[in-house]
Amino acid sequence: MGIKVAIMGATGAVGTELLDILAERKFPISELRLLASARSAGKTLQFQDEDIKVRELTHDSFKGIDLVLASAGGKISKEFAPSAVKAGAVVVDNTSYFRMTEGVPLVIPEINPEDIFKHKGIIANPNCSTIIMALPLWPLHKRFKIKRVVAATYQAASGAGAVAMDELVSETAAYIQGQDFNRTVIPHPYAFNLFPHNSPMTENGYCEEEIKMVKETRKIFHDDAIRVTATCVRVPVLRAHSEALNVEFEEEPDIEEVYALLRAMEGVEVMEDRANNRWPMPLDASGRDPVLVGRVRKDSSQPKTLDIWVVGDQIRKGAALNAVQIAEKLFKT
Amino acid sequence: MGIKVAIMGATGAVGTELLDILAERKFPISELRLLASARSAGKTLQFQDEDIKVRELTHDSFKGIDLVLASAGGKISKEFAPSAVKAGAVVVDNTSYFRMTEGVPLVIPEINPEDIFKHKGIIANPNCSTIIMALPLWPLHKRFKIKRVVAATYQAASGAGAVAMDELVSETAAYIQGQDFNRTVIPHPYAFNLFPHNSPMTENGYCEEEIKMVKETRKIFHDDAIRVTATCVRVPVLRAHSEALNVEFEEEPDIEEVYALLRAMEGVEVMEDRANNRWPMPLDASGRDPVLVGRVRKDSSQPKTLDIWVVGDQIRKGAALNAVQIAEKLFKT
Repeated sequence: MGIKVAIMGATGAVGTELLDILAERKFPISELRLLASARSAGKTLQFQDEDIKVRELTHDSFKGIDLVLASAGGKISKEFAPSAVKAGAVVVDNTSYFRMTEGVPLVIPEINPEDIFKHKGIIANPNCSTIIMALPLWPLHKRFKIKRVVAATYQAASGAGAVAMDELVSETAAYIQGQDFNRTVIPHPYAFNLFPHNSPMTENGYCEEEIKMVKETRKIFHDDAIRVTATCVRVPVLRAHSEALNVEFEEEPDIEEVYALLRAMEGVEVMEDRANNRWPMPLDASGRDPVLVGRVRKDSSQPKTLDIWVVGDQIRKGAALNAVQIAEKLFKT
Repeated sequence: MGIKVAIMGATGAVGTELLDILAERKFPISELRLLASARSAGKTLQFQDEDIKVRELTHDSFKGIDLVLASAGGKISKEFAPSAVKAGAVVVDNTSYFRMTEGVPLVIPEINPEDIFKHKGIIANPNCSTIIMALPLWPLHKRFKIKRVVAATYQAASGAGAVAMDELVSETAAYIQGQDFNRTVIPHPYAFNLFPHNSPMTENGYCEEEIKMVKETRKIFHDDAIRVTATCVRVPVLRAHSEALNVEFEEEPDIEEVYALLRAMEGVEVMEDRANNRWPMPLDASGRDPVLVGRVRKDSSQPKTLDIWVVGDQIRKGAALNAVQIAEKLFKT
């Protein structure tokens, strides 16, 4: 009596992490269909002890499927998600394509699980940077009401996919050895370098990644009054995003209460050792579920404002884990 | 009729850069005395075509010296700068020790050159992150008056010295090869990782590096009303710092006028290619004099506020170049 699951984009960074997480969390699967582009079809991926052949994604791929976990890019979701819905499946979509669409719930299960059940076939998984910011801010928003967030991100290569992660390592190795390197996915030198996020620029000077943090936060929190500005930056780190958040509240937050709220928040882990100047780092979060928070301090430049440091695994909570958690709630596993 | 110059900490990252810059800018030197700890004494450094032996720094090292460029750490400056002053030299000090001392000018020559001549023997060179932030903000402050800055830094290894730069490369090479690595100066894993700045924590939760950005900016601008909060982060980059600055003004800044002011500002270079999503990166700034600025945009979350992206070479304008520029003004070269 298990669930019939299809994964769109099974061979990517998020796709392979989805397999790990589904296995780890013993998601009750009765059939697992791995779908990818014609280029990847025929490859074999392991799930638990079974080898599963990757099939080419077509509009007929979804017969009998209950749940589609989609992470093959916005264009693919745009084209194939409607076919999956027509075939009777629910799509949990990791791409940005449907996130801001009216009627498509945008969900972080620890924040707005009730929205899951308002779906009309598609449920959207938020942007990684948004999830990592929103999860620790939610309990603080409920208690002290957030007015404005100034976010600066330190984003890992994984956000650009598995190839980008490989490319960061290969380019760095080449740099150290004094060799030339031809980049294929990363647009700028990446060895010991960083650059403002390479998502497309919009008219007001924000890149799309930044706009996502602004708009998705409002939709998830159901609060259009929250103001967010963000500067998104790609740093030479493999798979966890860090964020420096400056957060202004309506009410003066008490630091001890803030820490108590963070410690009580599902999916959040307070990690710090103030005496030893030791705070969350990408390596601490890599491969782990919780979003790590530390270094909460009163902003000395403005009342009712905190500086907060957060780090989360971009592939896990920032993408694959959040999607599986949505599916778990949806199917009441 | 040249100037007799001594360099304290001649063998460090800033010390060797001082030699390069003095040569490059043809600073009129009649004698160059290289001073370092007993450990480094006896080494030979090249200046122009001459090999100069490094001597051990003692309280008697300054006889006949006109100018001391000091970059051997705060403790060394504390101990030896007074001896240099007693011997009749002027000390341009790269360390933080005297920066906030009453009567010691803290100078960025493009901003407050007049302060140079108020010295009583010691002139302080600001913190690297402060210089890189303050230089592009100065013309905007004069025109629109800054109320508050929220800064997030992306700081290079060079801020922790030449050994840290070597260690970043060696640790990364070891990581790629799957080998263990013993760190000596960097306190945390640094290969494909980052961490909040490791300067000592202060009571209010800010680290010393952050406090420098808050206090030094006020002293340089002669404006105690400017409010600054900062989150300083060490990223795996070699020698240029980047900063995401969110800047609130008294007056609504006009973007075109902002760009015109930045283009006209000495020591600042506007670098951007909006159509190609290409903004300043650490590699662009490395080994170059100007602080690079780009991605100026109106903060959509708050009126009279801009998001600004700046990148500057930490060793050059962040340290050695600024010190030499002070000396040039002082001696009217």
